[in-house]
Amino acid sequence: MRCGIVSDDGALLARWEGPTNAKEGPEAVLARMADGVASAAQYAGLDLTDIRAIGVGVPGPLDSKAGIVHSAPNMPGWEHVPVSAILREKTGISTFLENDANCAGWGEFRVGAGSGTKHMLMITLGTGIGGAVIIDGKLFTGRDGTAGELGHVCIKEGGRLCGCGARGCVEAYASASATVARFLDLINIGWRTPLAEKGLDLTCADIFHAAAEGDPVAIYIVEETGRYLGVLAASMANLLNPECCVISGGMIQAGETLFGAIRTVCQTRCFTPGKTMAIVPAQLGANAGLIGAAGQAMERWQAEQSVKV
Amino acid sequence: MRCGIVSDDGALLARWEGPTNAKEGPEAVLARMADGVASAAQYAGLDLTDIRAIGVGVPGPLDSKAGIVHSAPNMPGWEHVPVSAILREKTGISTFLENDANCAGWGEFRVGAGSGTKHMLMITLGTGIGGAVIIDGKLFTGRDGTAGELGHVCIKEGGRLCGCGARGCVEAYASASATVARFLDLINIGWRTPLAEKGLDLTCADIFHAAAEGDPVAIYIVEETGRYLGVLAASMANLLNPECCVISGGMIQAGETLFGAIRTVCQTRCFTPGKTMAIVPAQLGANAGLIGAAGQAMERWQAEQSVKV
Repeated sequence: MRCGIVSDDGALLARWEGPTNAKEGPEAVLARMADGVASAAQYAGLDLTDIRAIGVGVPGPLDSKAGIVHSAPNMPGWEHVPVSAILREKTGISTFLENDANCAGWGEFRVGAGSGTKHMLMITLGTGIGGAVIIDGKLFTGRDGTAGELGHVCIKEGGRLCGCGARGCVEAYASASATVARFLDLINIGWRTPLAEKGLDLTCADIFHAAAEGDPVAIYIVEETGRYLGVLAASMANLLNPECCVISGGMIQAGETLFGAIRTVCQTRCFTPGKTMAIVPAQLGANAGLIGAAGQAMERWQAEQSVKV
Repeated sequence: MRCGIVSDDGALLARWEGPTNAKEGPEAVLARMADGVASAAQYAGLDLTDIRAIGVGVPGPLDSKAGIVHSAPNMPGWEHVPVSAILREKTGISTFLENDANCAGWGEFRVGAGSGTKHMLMITLGTGIGGAVIIDGKLFTGRDGTAGELGHVCIKEGGRLCGCGARGCVEAYASASATVARFLDLINIGWRTPLAEKGLDLTCADIFHAAAEGDPVAIYIVEETGRYLGVLAASMANLLNPECCVISGGMIQAGETLFGAIRTVCQTRCFTPGKTMAIVPAQLGANAGLIGAAGQAMERWQAEQSVKV
């Protein structure tokens, strides 16, 4: 669990981090969240009354407008929890809920790698692949608030099985876990690399480190991950013609080995106007979610105020 | 070339149709377009001064804001033609240019199959596959005005070669030409059907008629086209979570054989919220483009007026 104080212009003034202790259940976690806001405010030299809005970013199915978390992966007891209402009651501060990938996308859009653009996509690489769609300077969440599932755009009909149950989603090819799975496939068909010794303990980070040190099998796999992401990027450039596609997550540390492959495939696949779409690494790291959750809360708080006036 | 008079609420009051005679060159064609507006106005019982704005929908690369057609397929001499400026000069009426697929999408959104929705996609099936993206009640055209190329979303990396030069675009699988190509592939590997006699004269319409009459090979191909479109639809539901996906073009006459397959694959692939996305046939037929071009022109004319005030 991370908690921070963010200024109107997106600067992170104070930051607090601690274990979620999800097994204690929603009530205890929410109480600690409320305390965390107070501690962070104190640490920033502010009073709670100086805080205009609280933004909460969480993974998993949620109703952003109603402020309800429907369920949360690996968090027992989180069933239809009215997070916004509870935190508002505990703190007296307007609270707004948003999907964590959307928060991170909004943070990068406001003050990170996508700053200054109007239309931006974010692709977040992790165990799965998440994302966010910014259109006309606004976070686009669709009819039910679930838009932005870039990981579940199909790039290979009939291909690898995805965790979502469908075949061929880009998540099944280019997430950290899929990258490991493709690497193990190569070992199974006889490709040789010292990394093979790790067996099932192999992580995506191991592969990326080995690629950086020149292991040709690892380089092959990192570039292949880049090529699958390039296919997605080109589809997005053709479909949405944004200025910028920001890629985030630990995997971006692979640098040019990854980004070079993404850009080459995107360039060769997409139409002329899309070729100018910038494909850039995220800049805010783990703080993107914090900054974006606060930024989204401010947007929504201001919208509420203008309606009241 | 089609020309019509459309009221503020999207009703088609008069309609005129004739050959484009593209070989006469841009100047002659544009002169006939200007005359066409006058004739249509007369036919509707209106004076030219009653027409507030002219909307022009054309295929091919164009600059919508500047009103310039960069080039037009099969139309010699159409290189960087300032269509809006020329028509404005000839008629004295504000003229606005838009991609024809976007016009058709806007028509269906305003008064057709997508009427009443807020976020809508249009997939137009023809020789190629085009489309339009409506977000928050507005036509979304991206940074360069080229968004909405739904035909060039990749559904099968490394798959069939598309006319755009990339492999695996949905256009290479589910357009009318791709449907014929897949049918011929089956005949080449020995599938038997009376349609085989047509050889290279075979059209997509032949296949759809044969499917309607119960030819099992034709039914197989039509359903397969539907499955490829279902893959695209599911990706779009996950990515953009719109209320509605309208499908247009002559192929929609295949009805349930096609739409049933699209819906089944989309339902099985996409996340829960996306499952409620309506997948419906277009309602306006060949008039969608006319109505939408006029509607877009009105939107932009009104925006200009409000800026002037």
